[in-house]
Amino acid sequence: MNPILIPLIGGSVGVPIIACLFWWIKRESAGTTRMKEIASYIKEGAHAYLKREVVTISYVIIPFAIGLFFILGWEIAFGFFLGALFSIIAIITGMSGAVIANVRTTNAALTSPGRALILAFRGGSIMGFSVVSLILLGICSLYILFGVGPSNPEAVHTLVGFGLGASLSAMFAQIGGGIYTKAADIGADLVGKTEVGMVEDDPRNPAVIADLVGDNVGDCAGRGSDLFESSADNLVCIMIIGLTFLDNYGWNAVMFPLYIRGIGKIATIIGVFSVRKWGKRGPLTSLNIGLLSALFSNLILFYVLSLWLMKDIRIFYCLSVGILSLFVGTLIVQYYTGIDRSPVKKIAKGSQTGTPIGILTGFSFGLESAMFSMLLIGGVIILGYQIMDGGLLGIFGLAMATLGMTEMKGMMQSIDTYGPISDNAAGIAEMSGLSKEARKSLDTLDAAGNVTKAITKGYGLTKSVLSSIVILFAYIFVLIKYLGITMNDISDIALYLNLANPHIIVSLLIGASIPFLFSALLLRATSRAASKMVDEVRRQFKEISGLLRGDEKPDYSRCIDISTKNSLKEMIFPILVGLVAPVIIGFTLGVWPLAAFQIGLTIMGALLAVFMFNSGGAWDNSKKYIEDGHYGGKGSTAHKAAVVTDTVGDPMKDTVGPSLHILIKLSNIFSITLLPVFLLVN
Amino acid sequence: MNPILIPLIGGSVGVPIIACLFWWIKRESAGTTRMKEIASYIKEGAHAYLKREVVTISYVIIPFAIGLFFILGWEIAFGFFLGALFSIIAIITGMSGAVIANVRTTNAALTSPGRALILAFRGGSIMGFSVVSLILLGICSLYILFGVGPSNPEAVHTLVGFGLGASLSAMFAQIGGGIYTKAADIGADLVGKTEVGMVEDDPRNPAVIADLVGDNVGDCAGRGSDLFESSADNLVCIMIIGLTFLDNYGWNAVMFPLYIRGIGKIATIIGVFSVRKWGKRGPLTSLNIGLLSALFSNLILFYVLSLWLMKDIRIFYCLSVGILSLFVGTLIVQYYTGIDRSPVKKIAKGSQTGTPIGILTGFSFGLESAMFSMLLIGGVIILGYQIMDGGLLGIFGLAMATLGMTEMKGMMQSIDTYGPISDNAAGIAEMSGLSKEARKSLDTLDAAGNVTKAITKGYGLTKSVLSSIVILFAYIFVLIKYLGITMNDISDIALYLNLANPHIIVSLLIGASIPFLFSALLLRATSRAASKMVDEVRRQFKEISGLLRGDEKPDYSRCIDISTKNSLKEMIFPILVGLVAPVIIGFTLGVWPLAAFQIGLTIMGALLAVFMFNSGGAWDNSKKYIEDGHYGGKGSTAHKAAVVTDTVGDPMKDTVGPSLHILIKLSNIFSITLLPVFLLVN
Repeated sequence: MNPILIPLIGGSVGVPIIACLFWWIKRESAGTTRMKEIASYIKEGAHAYLKREVVTISYVIIPFAIGLFFILGWEIAFGFFLGALFSIIAIITGMSGAVIANVRTTNAALTSPGRALILAFRGGSIMGFSVVSLILLGICSLYILFGVGPSNPEAVHTLVGFGLGASLSAMFAQIGGGIYTKAADIGADLVGKTEVGMVEDDPRNPAVIADLVGDNVGDCAGRGSDLFESSADNLVCIMIIGLTFLDNYGWNAVMFPLYIRGIGKIATIIGVFSVRKWGKRGPLTSLNIGLLSALFSNLILFYVLSLWLMKDIRIFYCLSVGILSLFVGTLIVQYYTGIDRSPVKKIAKGSQTGTPIGILTGFSFGLESAMFSMLLIGGVIILGYQIMDGGLLGIFGLAMATLGMTEMKGMMQSIDTYGPISDNAAGIAEMSGLSKEARKSLDTLDAAGNVTKAITKGYGLTKSVLSSIVILFAYIFVLIKYLGITMNDISDIALYLNLANPHIIVSLLIGASIPFLFSALLLRATSRAASKMVDEVRRQFKEISGLLRGDEKPDYSRCIDISTKNSLKEMIFPILVGLVAPVIIGFTLGVWPLAAFQIGLTIMGALLAVFMFNSGGAWDNSKKYIEDGHYGGKGSTAHKAAVVTDTVGDPMKDTVGPSLHILIKLSNIFSITLLPVFLLVN
Repeated sequence: MNPILIPLIGGSVGVPIIACLFWWIKRESAGTTRMKEIASYIKEGAHAYLKREVVTISYVIIPFAIGLFFILGWEIAFGFFLGALFSIIAIITGMSGAVIANVRTTNAALTSPGRALILAFRGGSIMGFSVVSLILLGICSLYILFGVGPSNPEAVHTLVGFGLGASLSAMFAQIGGGIYTKAADIGADLVGKTEVGMVEDDPRNPAVIADLVGDNVGDCAGRGSDLFESSADNLVCIMIIGLTFLDNYGWNAVMFPLYIRGIGKIATIIGVFSVRKWGKRGPLTSLNIGLLSALFSNLILFYVLSLWLMKDIRIFYCLSVGILSLFVGTLIVQYYTGIDRSPVKKIAKGSQTGTPIGILTGFSFGLESAMFSMLLIGGVIILGYQIMDGGLLGIFGLAMATLGMTEMKGMMQSIDTYGPISDNAAGIAEMSGLSKEARKSLDTLDAAGNVTKAITKGYGLTKSVLSSIVILFAYIFVLIKYLGITMNDISDIALYLNLANPHIIVSLLIGASIPFLFSALLLRATSRAASKMVDEVRRQFKEISGLLRGDEKPDYSRCIDISTKNSLKEMIFPILVGLVAPVIIGFTLGVWPLAAFQIGLTIMGALLAVFMFNSGGAWDNSKKYIEDGHYGGKGSTAHKAAVVTDTVGDPMKDTVGPSLHILIKLSNIFSITLLPVFLLVN
């Protein structure tokens, strides 16, 4: 039997599971006519956006693929196309699950919070399974198509096109979705809540439907594409790195990540279906049981597969370090953004003296948290490296640590998508004027969601940075192969990556400054789109006379249209930065400085991303903390200040932060792909 | 004649010039009794603060010196003590000039704006000359005392203590002064301006005197100590680097920077005294003439000295690259913070939709500007390196570029101190209820000040980063000497600074995260101190019944006391971070990873600093732009939003940004000093 069949089967298993989940969710009632109506608005808006996004993406992807075909051959071009296509299919599938689960979650909340939780979570797990499965199906198909195998090991390199396709598609989905959702959110908040004094999700607010659509196209589809990308890149790059260790582990050095992913699907299935009503326990306990089941199943699989396939217990240690670092990461995010922790309380306290101190305090905690996340990441790198006793094999150890970490992605994606689904469910409840009972039950889900967000964010960050480091080493390994350098130890390439060389220092410096430019462009793009939304919402309140009294309906579709158009328009320039910067460095400074550029970009991008995530998260919760009745509660000076700080944090945490994750990977994987071209010039 | 006499004479020349400047300024009238009264409040407050600061510093400096004595010998300990002492004397002298020039500037403005300009500028040049002279006097004295010379070249290394003393003292002065000034400023603005609706410098505002004292202890003394530090560090480190090039240039390799500084004093004198009333031209023209005179005099000196002493025209090119980069740096800062440029206007426009968009837009332009500053710095590094045809000598070229740049420091410091003096002058005018005529004339000075601030900020940043890179290479050169490694080319140490080594990557990563922690602590320290000031000002408005009507006087001294106490208390923890972090890395990861740590810290610190400077500067000017009557002018929604964004930017640009400059140098120079200790353990 061809060993590739194992991961191929692992990937295929996802398809019937997804079908079952759809069937299971659709069976549930979608509630009253009003609820169905609102849900259909959201669904239509989300699908309409995704359709236009796909059209926009295809204008780029297709010429790009043709270019790759002529420059690098059909394998890279086809892999690229498949990567982009599968990424799109994965997020469309996942989002379709989310937009049918949202209203059913609302309806279930009327009778049982436990049932609502399971609906939201299973809705989210459609995204989880579609991401996990399509990556495996895609890479295994290419493996077979390109004739990869022990007799043709070099063909592994051509898989890199799949990663690039996934990355580019993710960049579009995340940036577009991120701008969309925040333009709508800021528009709805600044005018509806701050100026007019409405509550969240008031049906009279013209931007409210756009806001709910935003949850789906930004938080759900965007995040799904991010995970698709980082898992695909991670897998391909670990396989490339594996090529260097054929002497140590035979062909399993290349196949191991595929086996882990294929068989690891079992752990995801166990985890997802462990989330159920556990007696009278709350939703958080249910989610925790799911997480822990997935974790322990994974640890067992890691142990068995490491000893059985690799005959090296150290591989198990590395994988475990990766998966366990997840918990430390969660603790950091929970501390800095948790509603009951000191940072959030201090921000709320600072808001009493007005907006500036609130901003500065949140800003400060975000900066501080970035340092601790970096220490964690540094720890994982050093541990992975040292467990294999350093040297060249240490790099393999490091790659294994990231493989272990990425193995939780099915679970993480499910939990992540649970967030926007329960947000949507709460919005639908508010707009349909449902009973307090239902809302209370949705509040419980929301409270659980705050914790899960911390978990998935901590995870997302650590995973992105470590994936980038792995891509970097894949880049180095590919480079020395092209240059014909024999590498027995990492010291063999010291000459090319000498940190005392001013060219290397400058490349590092330029790399580090790219995330600043990228974030700047993205913040302005979001601000511009949000300003247009603010103008439109103000206009509607002014011109539609019966709107405030509730006699007339707002023009929802106009707001949806503004978010859609502007997000698609505004995403182009930031994406260009991610693509053009490595090309310029590769052609001007050369291929080794390009590696230094990537390191600078990765470190800086990561630091900025944590800062943006955690400042934004902490501001969000400090507002909620005040709304819970502290420091004067709703309507107080502190609350007014907190609403402003929360709005500042919104695009930071939901647009820029996640997009930075993609930037660092896209830039890295693009560099590997173009390596042969750079070498022609250098 | 001993060649050290040349720079020693150059340094000594400053003393009579300073005396003349004092005499010249004191001759001028200080105006009405009311003006003198206010000026004396400011003077007393400033001196009282500096006195307490010196006491606080001495608690640290003296035990530190004793520790250095036992661990590293008397030379380092004595040099350290002298560095700290001279730095303190320089800023006390400079600030004494500022606090007598302020009120005389106000008075001169009554009759002639041109005369007011010259007073403010010459007041500032006392700081300029005292910094420039005391550095030379200190280093030359140590040179003689330690018996440095061609027969004892290694003694140059002991000069490093002087740099460390200057750095530590600067850290205290800048952080303490920075917290002081922003606590007072935010307190005065948030309550007096935003809540009560007073104008700037209203005498009824209890925090107004503290605010004016803050201009002196923060902007004037803090910035002076920064420049003292970076010039001292730069000088010592270039001399250390020079040791490696004795074969190329003889003993002049070490002496050249001293000659340049000593003889370069002529250019500073020419520059300073070219600033005078040039017919009917405005103040900006006068300042520009001064700058250009200094620039051209320097270029001529560079040309002569390079050919005469070094017999290498390339040295002249490197020096010129350094001094000319100043202009590009200025253009960047002017573009991003200029009141008539697109970024500031866009921020003002964004403020129309409320605070969040104003914050996000300013945030965005600050981030973007950081990228361009890095490109400039990268360009200087590459040029300096390539002009000497790369390799080891390229490092010398890079050092020469920074030497050229630092040569403008006398002029730059004079212009920099001109800022707080004219701010003070305007405050005194407002508080004494002077005629509109005088205020208009001070407004002209202020407008010129906005441009000069851009120049000195652009300068400060480029200089700090490049100085840090030079310190880094000094560190590497000292390290290989201790380790007994012969270095013929930078590739000889590639093995130790291999960027593919995970230990190096992790050190870089940790180094890059330190500025985040440092900024976080400092922002919170400032916020805490500002909150206390806000409470006190609110209390006075509430409890002193006739205050608002102007019947009763506020308790100025209470506010001064709050700023003083809290700034001295709050500065301890951030300073500890700067000192402890390199020690931990040096002892745990080792001396080579420590070099990577420094690079990470330098790059990241620089990026954060530019971002903070320029965001803060742009917010400040966007407020002024609105106050000039755009987007509704004073009192409009846009203006209210702009006042908030300006307050957010204040501690960023005036506390954290400048302190980051010192952090990167302090951490670097501290590492060199402790190198022998680290090597005992490693």
